Amino acid sequence: MSPTIGVFDSGFGGLTVLRALLRNLPQANFAFLGDTARLPYGSKSRRTIARYAAESAQFLVREQGAEFLVIACNTASALALDAIQAAVPVPVLGVIEPGAASARAASVTGDVLVIATAATVESRAYTAACQARGLRALEKACPLLVPFAEEGWTDHPVTAEVIRIYLSELLGEAADRGLQPDTLVLGCTHYPLLRPLIENAVPYGMKVIDSAEATAAAAARMLGQIPPLSESDPPTGQVSCFATDSVEKFERLGSRFLDRPTGPVQLVDLGG
Amino acid sequence: MSPTIGVFDSGFGGLTVLRALLRNLPQANFAFLGDTARLPYGSKSRRTIARYAAESAQFLVREQGAEFLVIACNTASALALDAIQAAVPVPVLGVIEPGAASARAASVTGDVLVIATAATVESRAYTAACQARGLRALEKACPLLVPFAEEGWTDHPVTAEVIRIYLSELLGEAADRGLQPDTLVLGCTHYPLLRPLIENAVPYGMKVIDSAEATAAAAARMLGQIPPLSESDPPTGQVSCFATDSVEKFERLGSRFLDRPTGPVQLVDLGG
Repeated sequence: MSPTIGVFDSGFGGLTVLRALLRNLPQANFAFLGDTARLPYGSKSRRTIARYAAESAQFLVREQGAEFLVIACNTASALALDAIQAAVPVPVLGVIEPGAASARAASVTGDVLVIATAATVESRAYTAACQARGLRALEKACPLLVPFAEEGWTDHPVTAEVIRIYLSELLGEAADRGLQPDTLVLGCTHYPLLRPLIENAVPYGMKVIDSAEATAAAAARMLGQIPPLSESDPPTGQVSCFATDSVEKFERLGSRFLDRPTGPVQLVDLGG
Repeated sequence: MSPTIGVFDSGFGGLTVLRALLRNLPQANFAFLGDTARLPYGSKSRRTIARYAAESAQFLVREQGAEFLVIACNTASALALDAIQAAVPVPVLGVIEPGAASARAASVTGDVLVIATAATVESRAYTAACQARGLRALEKACPLLVPFAEEGWTDHPVTAEVIRIYLSELLGEAADRGLQPDTLVLGCTHYPLLRPLIENAVPYGMKVIDSAEATAAAAARMLGQIPPLSESDPPTGQVSCFATDSVEKFERLGSRFLDRPTGPVQLVDLGG
């Protein structure tokens, strides 16, 4: 029997994590919830984010039977992982720790850069997770990148220019602090859509870490030890998508993030 | 006795309307609510927006004693004016009708352009309000402009370039349809912050209409007929600001929209 994995995000961005999970766990069943009525979390307070995230996690566990939760949202992982773990009785994996572990594996100099939403940066969660692994991290909020990804300007010269400006400011600050960064962590699940533009903008040789990939790999390792996926299981993993607002928009934008159709999205009311 | 005017927006943008109201009604008291925990409305569905807006309006009337409501949010005005009017027993003024009336007064050709959020454009509310006045309107969603205004890039070359791209697409579509637009309506309360860049980007002679100014003037006319403002009233109008999320962010960003300090912002919980 394949496990049901609950995947939660404030919106669509977490579908980049689901995409990576599907590659790593082809036999699992997935229930994805986008709390689209209350997005974006990135500009909200810790208290509000914790309440929204706990309600969303409870929906996935109580109503969808999720036995394992992936918080496919950097902001919720940074600000609400404790609140979510307290709210549900199943293992919960966020994206911050796998992203930091991946940066540790990639970096030679020990200095890493992180780009993320304002709320994620203000939480200092990446800085703490990196420090715990002996890395020095410098974070920068890039609030315009989510709107560009959602507008579909993922290959647009203006988006490239905004990325160039943000990275130039970040690299300048790193130099001022005497850092020698060789790794850049994409600390927001929307950013993998901009990865080609970001790869073009970083200095030669800098590695770009996608938290989505790192998290999917960590989930596969953890699930290998929890309810083992048997080779005899047929590859019949199902994906069910839920949203708290406009399912049409979710279906339209979601396929871009998931890189395949989302299928019919069901509207849920979390009472918010 | 000066009336208390409730002013409601999903976020900070409506403070540009409050700024105009303060100029037009210096003796009134204002209670402004930004439903920042649930912003932005512009990307959400009519059903969700109507529920959020009705709850916000009830807070201003029941708990703050507002005797008159200004919906300082194009999206809520476009999608939820009926729901708000049904939810509270006081007069309610949105920003769409005053904006369209102002365009009617400004346009010679009878063809007007409207830029706004996706939800406002999809509602066709400006098109309907313009048609009722014998104008032909062409609307365009400009989802990146709110993020630029909130990021503070109000005088940035990248913002100017995005505005140029949006207006160029809109003018091209107008030409394809044989329209001769001479007026542009700023159909989002964030856009007045970008007005200098927009003025630079429109064709020579095109008039730019700010719904905030038009709405404040309409409110002053309506209030002149409801509870008259006496000349003997001292100019002691008070402004109280409320937000459903991070008051620090509201205070920091809000002063930019209001063009003066917001004063202490009180956190309220609408249960959402």
